[in-house]
Amino acid sequence: MKDKIQQKINLKTKPIGALGLLEDLAFKIGNIQQTVSPCLKKPALVVFSGDHGIANEGVSAYPQEVTQQMVLNFINDGAAINIFTKQHNINIHVVDSGVNFNFIQHENIIDCKINYGTKSFLNNKAMNADEFNQCILKGQSIVRDIAFQGTNIIGFGEMGIGNTSSSSIIMSYICDLPIKECVGRGTGIDNSHLQKKINILEQSKIFHGNLTNIKDVFSTFGGFEMVQMCGAMLEAYKQKMIILVDGFIASTVFLVASKINPSIIDNAIFCHLSNEKAHSLLLQYLDANPVLKLNLRLGEGTGCALAYPIIQSSVNFLNDMASFDSAGISKKS
Amino acid sequence: MKDKIQQKINLKTKPIGALGLLEDLAFKIGNIQQTVSPCLKKPALVVFSGDHGIANEGVSAYPQEVTQQMVLNFINDGAAINIFTKQHNINIHVVDSGVNFNFIQHENIIDCKINYGTKSFLNNKAMNADEFNQCILKGQSIVRDIAFQGTNIIGFGEMGIGNTSSSSIIMSYICDLPIKECVGRGTGIDNSHLQKKINILEQSKIFHGNLTNIKDVFSTFGGFEMVQMCGAMLEAYKQKMIILVDGFIASTVFLVASKINPSIIDNAIFCHLSNEKAHSLLLQYLDANPVLKLNLRLGEGTGCALAYPIIQSSVNFLNDMASFDSAGISKKS
Repeated sequence: MKDKIQQKINLKTKPIGALGLLEDLAFKIGNIQQTVSPCLKKPALVVFSGDHGIANEGVSAYPQEVTQQMVLNFINDGAAINIFTKQHNINIHVVDSGVNFNFIQHENIIDCKINYGTKSFLNNKAMNADEFNQCILKGQSIVRDIAFQGTNIIGFGEMGIGNTSSSSIIMSYICDLPIKECVGRGTGIDNSHLQKKINILEQSKIFHGNLTNIKDVFSTFGGFEMVQMCGAMLEAYKQKMIILVDGFIASTVFLVASKINPSIIDNAIFCHLSNEKAHSLLLQYLDANPVLKLNLRLGEGTGCALAYPIIQSSVNFLNDMASFDSAGISKKS
Repeated sequence: MKDKIQQKINLKTKPIGALGLLEDLAFKIGNIQQTVSPCLKKPALVVFSGDHGIANEGVSAYPQEVTQQMVLNFINDGAAINIFTKQHNINIHVVDSGVNFNFIQHENIIDCKINYGTKSFLNNKAMNADEFNQCILKGQSIVRDIAFQGTNIIGFGEMGIGNTSSSSIIMSYICDLPIKECVGRGTGIDNSHLQKKINILEQSKIFHGNLTNIKDVFSTFGGFEMVQMCGAMLEAYKQKMIILVDGFIASTVFLVASKINPSIIDNAIFCHLSNEKAHSLLLQYLDANPVLKLNLRLGEGTGCALAYPIIQSSVNFLNDMASFDSAGISKKS
């Protein structure tokens, strides 16, 4: 099948390779779907949201309440991700994975609340084993439901004040890199604030010591929204879906998922290189070539939604462009 | 107006600057349209096509007939640019600026034929002064007609075997750089072929000697499709349109246009960094930050069409996203 897809791409009316990254995407999607005529069906984006105990240690520029306020913004169609998913007819699903607030009166939120935020990993494990397992199951279940509706391409976003800190320390453990290479300015902190964030993360590493098991690392530092996203990614792979990976946090979750099931890389499209400093290093570690480089640093799945039309273009050229033969065009001399 | 637009951007429900390049685009488009609520109307893409005498000296991997064959492919909806403009509801206009072929029976081609290809600039001026002036007028006239239909955003593509050679030598004259820094592999030539291209362009520079007047440079080396595009860009600026600049050839034409009217930069969006080696240097010279970096090297306006949804996203977030006040969200501490 690989050869057939490559041949179809090469016979299109353009110099070999002239569509660059679009050719790589078409090749990848053809392989995922095992066809030379792939299609994208009912694109979906799931935004997982959760609060982080570490946010109360002062790692972020914003107070913890912003998580719940932004979730309300999502269901009122006011956030960036609402604008971009609407533009591209992507179905958005907003999940309360563990926000420190009761959304009981809001029917547009999928209730997967595990708890009212994680514990601060400065001196606790963020979640216990039972909470961790629940998260994985909930994430899987959400994706199974969406797959059942016919979706074959899915992106994942997140909202959680403090979750760049979670991601940085997880990256530091898994990639075996010092904290200072794994951090960035998150929502936009200044130099002294950044140094404070580094100090807190380094103290946390000292407190928890050496952790080698991937699930230990993830449950010690992850957020409920992150672990649910991990379950969701693993299930999306099982369902043979195209997996759209967003920015720094989603890439960290993908890093964990890829340690659990290395084959998942075959189904992943990295949508965006974030402006968050460590993301570039993380994508290098994953050997990933992102579709967009727009200097975003917002999360929510915005990179996935913005990359979607480019991904659609790759499928469209593979299906609809003329070949040299069909158009009667002379080949390269 | 600049302050008002920036303020509207800053009050959206996201950290300051978190939408990166989309914020720059929204700011630019607001300024072009002098409003905090801009809109994109009836997007259009004009593909100019023409033959080059220099193609017969062996600078390209493809024979000259490919120009006419690709024009037929455009009007039969088989080329990459057809696929991408259709995807985004962009009206495509195909122009015969000077192809070495009679398209008389094809009503979907706008006939602006100046001649049956330019002369080889290895030992001639590519076109005479009358042909040059006609090109500028034809390009202006096409854009006036499109503006009259209500279009306020326009992209320009080209087809012309040999036109990376034209662009390289023009860039070399205007930017005062040696030929070897201004060339690339065009449609995909190998090392020895590339050296031949460099030799031919260096011989051409020796033959024509020192040229300082911009119109002299452009008429000596340009193609009919390139000069028509230049007239079109200048008119698009007059009509206060957003101008979408495609890859290496379109950027070279823009370089010429910007020497004729430096203000044109205010209306330009650089859509794509081409895989053609010299393009990166040219964009640096123009102080331009392209929207996409997809390793395309196809021309036709494909970069414009692929960047269009991102540009639309920038307008959409400016118009439709909630503000911190309207969504009741806490500000940065």
